[in-house]
Amino acid sequence: MTFRFQLHHTDADTGARRGTFTTPHGPVETPGFMPVGTQGTVKGLTIDHVASTGAHMILGNTYHLGLRPGHQTVRALGGLHAMSGWEGPILTDSGGFQVFSLKGINKISEHSVVFRSHIDGALIDLTPEHSMEIQESLGSDVAMVLDHVVALPAERDEVQQAMERSIRWAKRCLEYASCGDQAKFAIVQGGLDVDLRVQCARELAAMNFEGYAVGGLSVGETPDEMYRITAATTPELPAEKPRYLMGVGRPIDLLESIVRGIDLFDCVMPTRNGRNGFAFTDSGPIKIRNAKHKTDTSPLDDSCDCLTCTRHSRGYLRHLFIAGEMLGPTLLSLHNLTYYQKVMRGAREAIQADRLAEYIATKKSQWGIT
Amino acid sequence: MTFRFQLHHTDADTGARRGTFTTPHGPVETPGFMPVGTQGTVKGLTIDHVASTGAHMILGNTYHLGLRPGHQTVRALGGLHAMSGWEGPILTDSGGFQVFSLKGINKISEHSVVFRSHIDGALIDLTPEHSMEIQESLGSDVAMVLDHVVALPAERDEVQQAMERSIRWAKRCLEYASCGDQAKFAIVQGGLDVDLRVQCARELAAMNFEGYAVGGLSVGETPDEMYRITAATTPELPAEKPRYLMGVGRPIDLLESIVRGIDLFDCVMPTRNGRNGFAFTDSGPIKIRNAKHKTDTSPLDDSCDCLTCTRHSRGYLRHLFIAGEMLGPTLLSLHNLTYYQKVMRGAREAIQADRLAEYIATKKSQWGIT
Repeated sequence: MTFRFQLHHTDADTGARRGTFTTPHGPVETPGFMPVGTQGTVKGLTIDHVASTGAHMILGNTYHLGLRPGHQTVRALGGLHAMSGWEGPILTDSGGFQVFSLKGINKISEHSVVFRSHIDGALIDLTPEHSMEIQESLGSDVAMVLDHVVALPAERDEVQQAMERSIRWAKRCLEYASCGDQAKFAIVQGGLDVDLRVQCARELAAMNFEGYAVGGLSVGETPDEMYRITAATTPELPAEKPRYLMGVGRPIDLLESIVRGIDLFDCVMPTRNGRNGFAFTDSGPIKIRNAKHKTDTSPLDDSCDCLTCTRHSRGYLRHLFIAGEMLGPTLLSLHNLTYYQKVMRGAREAIQADRLAEYIATKKSQWGIT
Repeated sequence: MTFRFQLHHTDADTGARRGTFTTPHGPVETPGFMPVGTQGTVKGLTIDHVASTGAHMILGNTYHLGLRPGHQTVRALGGLHAMSGWEGPILTDSGGFQVFSLKGINKISEHSVVFRSHIDGALIDLTPEHSMEIQESLGSDVAMVLDHVVALPAERDEVQQAMERSIRWAKRCLEYASCGDQAKFAIVQGGLDVDLRVQCARELAAMNFEGYAVGGLSVGETPDEMYRITAATTPELPAEKPRYLMGVGRPIDLLESIVRGIDLFDCVMPTRNGRNGFAFTDSGPIKIRNAKHKTDTSPLDDSCDCLTCTRHSRGYLRHLFIAGEMLGPTLLSLHNLTYYQKVMRGAREAIQADRLAEYIATKKSQWGIT
């Protein structure tokens, strides 16, 4: 069997899961965090840098790669693995989130979503089948189904219709002639309505996907609302399949969602914040542009073994940002991704030892979260 | 003795020199090329990347670092080596070239040059002594004297006066209380006038500098003019000291200048051109944005062992540039610097074997230069 999800242990207190998701390009230890490589590159990092952070699986964006360089070009270059040089597992999203976040330039029907390219204005007709076709060309290990994402807040009717359409589209994606070395993950929608989420999860769980995602969150709702919806959804998903919370989030969101039964995450936060001079550390967040770092010879994070922390001082990193040097964003992205992986590794070890609650309490204390 | 220049061999045909320049931070094999790290970073590359190119010594800019983060800040961060993490030799320029290329905002007297900071408009009074003081704070292995650079073409009188002032300023730099672990290099000026160049070289050669540079070239004159001036200048310089041609140049310029007795070079060309999507290869120059590379799975340069060429295709590199990804400039800069080092390594081996002319003929043929 090409794909396999083994559950190694469940934390006694919280029910959090420790597992291994095996793909054709290697294993992904869960709970796990995927760096985002939107356009076939994790912004500012070489693939060796990405590997050095401890990441197992990275994410590529179907919307972006489908427009540029185009999926035929990616295929001609040997697929996303060969093109980017990343030899580990890759998950691609379906384009749904990007298409629906481009306000006012899309028209949705049962058949497809029609949108204009943000690059050249060309009209694109994206069907569930076409999303799968693109993802097959990309050659990712995991393809996400095309879903209908609704901006929140929204009327219940609108949320329900989009959720029901997402189920029908998921079925079409599943029925699309598939290549056996690509897993398909369904996406649960339903906004902030628990009943809709549960209904969606149950209907998707009845189909044979290799994994399940919770989508349509991290779109402006409060963390508590996100935790509530996640907690209500995961019990309805098959225990023997990996569960992926899309687009989340801050380190604390990852830990709170692991407690609620999530196995996989992706988010641009470590790289985007890194490019903006914002670092995650065990002493809480650091704004590296702050004048107080000007002559500080200490590293970003004493306990971090990334290139940034073992080689460079806060004073140097501040200088790079003030001077507008590319190396600043590169080094902070590298550190932040390393930090995220360290938090996840800590969570995996804590689950294995039935000490996740204690681990989270320690992290919250370090981060100054009460 | 902290600094030492050993001449190992002189090419029988051309008189080109093969040597080792020893500094407190290690040896520099000559002929050698220094990547430019203007603001304490070779743009877009980690120090491990820079080391992987085979570079021995890098260059820092006194003008830029003196303004930002300021030399006291660099000193507080342990000097340029500790700050940047580069453990090998570093040469710093004097600020002269930058100051004099900021047209219309400087006032020159025998005492100093007064200019406005391009960052905040502050008025800066740069004396030869202050340039040395800044470079001492930076802690470079080699400090360059402050010189008076004249834009070409210029009247002979103006060139002569600037040349004579450069000699007087060089003397003041030499007399400035020095730290023993920093070498001082003088700079020969004199525009395109051979007599002035020879006079300047002789007067500077009579002073006890650890090395000598040919400055004020690569400012718009033709390559032949540059070669002519270089050829006329080097015989007047002490044979037992290293000779550095500042700000040069294209790979062919390096080889033609090695033939004319030059040992050291620096230039932004490999990194600046790299950031602009232009690669140097054994098959001649490549514009990576060109549509013909779209689905090309071959590397930039078959014979190159850099990360860029061993990992990535031309098609992927083109995609990175078209998509505006930071990794494109990083990967092409890394390749170009590796290529420059390879050309220099080839030149060193050729000199040792008394085959430099043959080596240059081969390179010109590969590059399509007749």
